[in-house]
Amino acid sequence: MTDPLTIYEKLQKVFWADVKSEENQVLLGQVYEASVRFLSRVQRTGLKSLVPDKEYFAFGAGKKLSRAVSGQLFVSDFGEWDALRRNAAANRSPDIDSERITRIIYSAAVSFFCFIDLTKEGDQKTPGTFFEYLIGCLFAARLGVNPTTKLPVLSLDAKATLPTDFIFDLGPNRAKYHVPIKVSTRERVIQVWAHQRVLNGVYGTGRFLGTPVILTETKTDKRKREVIEICLPDQWRIYQTHIAQLKRIYYLDVPARYAKLNEAFPPLSVKPFGRFFAEADTFSTRSSEKPESKSGSCAHAPAGGCG
Amino acid sequence: MTDPLTIYEKLQKVFWADVKSEENQVLLGQVYEASVRFLSRVQRTGLKSLVPDKEYFAFGAGKKLSRAVSGQLFVSDFGEWDALRRNAAANRSPDIDSERITRIIYSAAVSFFCFIDLTKEGDQKTPGTFFEYLIGCLFAARLGVNPTTKLPVLSLDAKATLPTDFIFDLGPNRAKYHVPIKVSTRERVIQVWAHQRVLNGVYGTGRFLGTPVILTETKTDKRKREVIEICLPDQWRIYQTHIAQLKRIYYLDVPARYAKLNEAFPPLSVKPFGRFFAEADTFSTRSSEKPESKSGSCAHAPAGGCG
Repeated sequence: MTDPLTIYEKLQKVFWADVKSEENQVLLGQVYEASVRFLSRVQRTGLKSLVPDKEYFAFGAGKKLSRAVSGQLFVSDFGEWDALRRNAAANRSPDIDSERITRIIYSAAVSFFCFIDLTKEGDQKTPGTFFEYLIGCLFAARLGVNPTTKLPVLSLDAKATLPTDFIFDLGPNRAKYHVPIKVSTRERVIQVWAHQRVLNGVYGTGRFLGTPVILTETKTDKRKREVIEICLPDQWRIYQTHIAQLKRIYYLDVPARYAKLNEAFPPLSVKPFGRFFAEADTFSTRSSEKPESKSGSCAHAPAGGCG
Repeated sequence: MTDPLTIYEKLQKVFWADVKSEENQVLLGQVYEASVRFLSRVQRTGLKSLVPDKEYFAFGAGKKLSRAVSGQLFVSDFGEWDALRRNAAANRSPDIDSERITRIIYSAAVSFFCFIDLTKEGDQKTPGTFFEYLIGCLFAARLGVNPTTKLPVLSLDAKATLPTDFIFDLGPNRAKYHVPIKVSTRERVIQVWAHQRVLNGVYGTGRFLGTPVILTETKTDKRKREVIEICLPDQWRIYQTHIAQLKRIYYLDVPARYAKLNEAFPPLSVKPFGRFFAEADTFSTRSSEKPESKSGSCAHAPAGGCG
């Protein structure tokens, strides 16, 4: 049986050659399959969920316990990956419903993370990079364009490039996507808004749609076997009002307290990532026809005059 | 002989009762003294500095090696702490020169950090908190006011408080200081500008002077015994132009490449922290009489209209 890590290492070698490629998609599915096969031989331990209406369990037992896995979202049938590939990883609206898409992508990520949790010690980097590959590839396949991670910055004195999260450029007169990809954010989330602010300042407000994709905000107390979600909704509202406007915040496992921000001021749209595959076309069309005033109140100021 | 950690724990208990107090100042000096006494029995190992015109060494030998210590800045004469206290930790311009102040504060911080490096495994939190105590106490003593770490945010729907770095409020019609305190920043530095942007948005541009205090940006390759400085000057210039304006960026060990930003556009003033003690009065007076236009180009916009 193949080790998930061996396939992951193969993916690392080829990933950037063509991010949206079938080869990447197939390798991602193979990591999912190998991880699920590994986990099928591991015990599941129920966790006490302190999040209303959500259930969590962990893989493993005794001292080695994986991170929390959502009972509602986790799908161990890795055959689902092919359904996703056939129906969602193409430059058009998908033929399967968005909840199913969310569950498949969640499971592909979390199964590999749990494999790492149980076989490695304190490795944060591998899950983080795998999650970038997973989301980056599917985002690229849906839009039909590969991402870049640096942009030129116009300066009167010197040439500079700005290292960025994933940027997807749909071409002239169309919106560009700014896609930070994070396993979880906690207090580091302010960086996402700050990077959006820099893009607004350098290229003009409304040019880049900020659509971060985050896995979850759960935290597990392994001794007590309890799961909580760490959320800072009041701070998010302050950032959305005073730093920059994000178009969407996508989660695979949407935190309960962030879901409520959809109903409050300022407009903050927190959605399951599966929705992106259906709504992607509406964004790019709309933003080229009619720049939305709510995406930034500094449109009247000269570029860069708002810092 | 007293263990530095025992004194540190005593400081933890009393610190917040009166940040600028003589008791805190004395305890900080005792940590410095106990750390230097510990280090006096430890071997020094020369490091290869890849930073022009700077020399570094480390304490310890073999597998246990401390972080890099600046040969030019480190003072093992802990009697210097009393000179600092008598002459700089008061609400007036100091009677000793700023280079000497910088060296004493640098040495108090680094001696305790090296003690932790040699006696603990992977403890980042204790050095970070001690550095906040050290800088927070001296900043407070110099200004004659204690800091707060949260601010009320006016919102039409809900009451919220904003957790902040150290804020020093000099009173009505005077500037307030926003003082993030970091051992090093690396790529997390964007948070400092983002927090300043939030303060500008919530309270109006120019109300808070952003003056972060950072120890160093050195990084040591322990295998090769080489020291480098990790600097991102082009990104700093983009942040200062497009996110918010910081008034000063103080370092104890000023990185060579950041020092050069003093001569470039946009205005970015990077100085040794010792300078603060002499120039503190000029800030608060000036900013109450004449708001500086360069501290933000959005002063014409209504508060909060610039996010």
